[in-house]
Amino acid sequence: MSRLPVPTMPAPPVCVVGLGQLGGSLAAALVAAGRPVTGWDTDPAARAAAASRGVTIGRELSGVVVLATPIPALGTALDDLQVDGDATVTDLGSVKAPVLAALGARFGTRFVGGHPMCGTERSGHAAADPELFRGARWAVCLEPDTELPRWLRVAELALAVGAEVVPVTAREHDDAVAAISHVPHLLAAALAAAAADAGPLALGLAAGSFASGTRVIGSDPAFVTAMVEGNAGPTAAALAAVRAQLERPWPELVADGHAVARRAGDHRTLRVPLDRAALLALGRAGGAVSRRLAAFVEGWVPEEPAASTAP
Amino acid sequence: MSRLPVPTMPAPPVCVVGLGQLGGSLAAALVAAGRPVTGWDTDPAARAAAASRGVTIGRELSGVVVLATPIPALGTALDDLQVDGDATVTDLGSVKAPVLAALGARFGTRFVGGHPMCGTERSGHAAADPELFRGARWAVCLEPDTELPRWLRVAELALAVGAEVVPVTAREHDDAVAAISHVPHLLAAALAAAAADAGPLALGLAAGSFASGTRVIGSDPAFVTAMVEGNAGPTAAALAAVRAQLERPWPELVADGHAVARRAGDHRTLRVPLDRAALLALGRAGGAVSRRLAAFVEGWVPEEPAASTAP
Repeated sequence: MSRLPVPTMPAPPVCVVGLGQLGGSLAAALVAAGRPVTGWDTDPAARAAAASRGVTIGRELSGVVVLATPIPALGTALDDLQVDGDATVTDLGSVKAPVLAALGARFGTRFVGGHPMCGTERSGHAAADPELFRGARWAVCLEPDTELPRWLRVAELALAVGAEVVPVTAREHDDAVAAISHVPHLLAAALAAAAADAGPLALGLAAGSFASGTRVIGSDPAFVTAMVEGNAGPTAAALAAVRAQLERPWPELVADGHAVARRAGDHRTLRVPLDRAALLALGRAGGAVSRRLAAFVEGWVPEEPAASTAP
Repeated sequence: MSRLPVPTMPAPPVCVVGLGQLGGSLAAALVAAGRPVTGWDTDPAARAAAASRGVTIGRELSGVVVLATPIPALGTALDDLQVDGDATVTDLGSVKAPVLAALGARFGTRFVGGHPMCGTERSGHAAADPELFRGARWAVCLEPDTELPRWLRVAELALAVGAEVVPVTAREHDDAVAAISHVPHLLAAALAAAAADAGPLALGLAAGSFASGTRVIGSDPAFVTAMVEGNAGPTAAALAAVRAQLERPWPELVADGHAVARRAGDHRTLRVPLDRAALLALGRAGGAVSRRLAAFVEGWVPEEPAASTAP
């Protein structure tokens, strides 16, 4: 594969605000990848845990600033911190249109929304894991006015920790996660509640297998409720779509469901130019940027075309 | 723990008809537990695989005869085989009332229905695993006319391979598995079909996490369709119950679902007398017989009272 003879520049600094499970994992993963990371958390224990993993604790933020707090805290996460006027700001929240509305108003086109599709039932800095993002898909929002160089900076961060980047608009993201993440939480809750109504015998027979099937429920109902209510419109629409499916004859429904599960394994690798339309088309086709964008020049011309996969 | 000074007798012979994943696993697990097993399958390759695991291949069946074929083949599974007139007959099918109607008419009170709550996406003798049943719950049907000594023979078999026995009637079983197993298959199919309708972007973002969430779909739609249609009444009722749950306000629904998931971890150990009413009460309370019934005397008086757990 030939490489363009472009001069390289060092990667911009990365700052992570909020050092719980997601932020702590990201900071640790970047340190493991040899990247200097500045971090901050209002909790001294979270700061100490991050410092022990090689994160520099500080309040002066520049380069790419990752807001890794819960969504309700995004608005105050930067209070008492100094943020460079040219910093690119991103977040890790599970819903993107409301966050874009709030942070876009504050940071303009310096804001690029993001959402790594990972995380576990656990939370807090003790659950930080530098391998958390490996193989995960990470939505990075590409709106009509997003500055492509800033989008590339955020995408590069995701690739650096082993994730694959899905270029997507905030609205498309929210519709998609309603279907694949938020509705499954509601279905799991409805299934568990209905099984409990069916009586202890049902739960007793389910011991084991049912517990893993309802793992998606997780451990914090307040978090799940905030998530589905924070994406209420798309989640209600996606739930209605599932309910419509459930009215179909079972043989058709089962056959279609299986066909989707089988398709999920297909993929191929192709090259995609780094322009907005081509990147969004890749995401809409089910693909992701999967290879590292290695060179840092004005506007982030990569050493090689972005290699991408589509299912 | 004091033991009753009862004489012991050797366990009755076990015969397994159908040596695919479930039957092959059971035969292998019993051999591993030091029990002589006779097996039969119409497929010479399945017979050879079982023989290589120490199963005696033969057509003369006595003791406990386990029918481990798919439900549609149960009626012809014993064609060309010689079954002792006093043999206890059991099965491993995922629905119990229709099987009881068919095999109860043929074998009378010698038939005791069973259903181990395990199995994977794989099938066939190559998927046999002697550890398949360890820790699984195994429903063993106790109808008003079931002969308790025969029920105990089947229960002992399940305990011998590491399962826990849930005493249950066929009808109660079918209602319970509709709620915990058959409806989840339909929900998973509806979720996958709706996500596919939402477009490739949704499936692309779901890569990985969604695949595990839809694992319940398995690999054989015909098998799933036969399962839900074979338990159509209870499955339709359980599906209606889930749909009713989905009409509730999300915060209530999520809170209730989480409460069920939390409860699933609770358990305690107690002793239960070996009589029909006490055993069925244990099952209805969500419990299972978890300890081996070790002594074999007339009527299977155990060396110690059955130890049982309830969630």
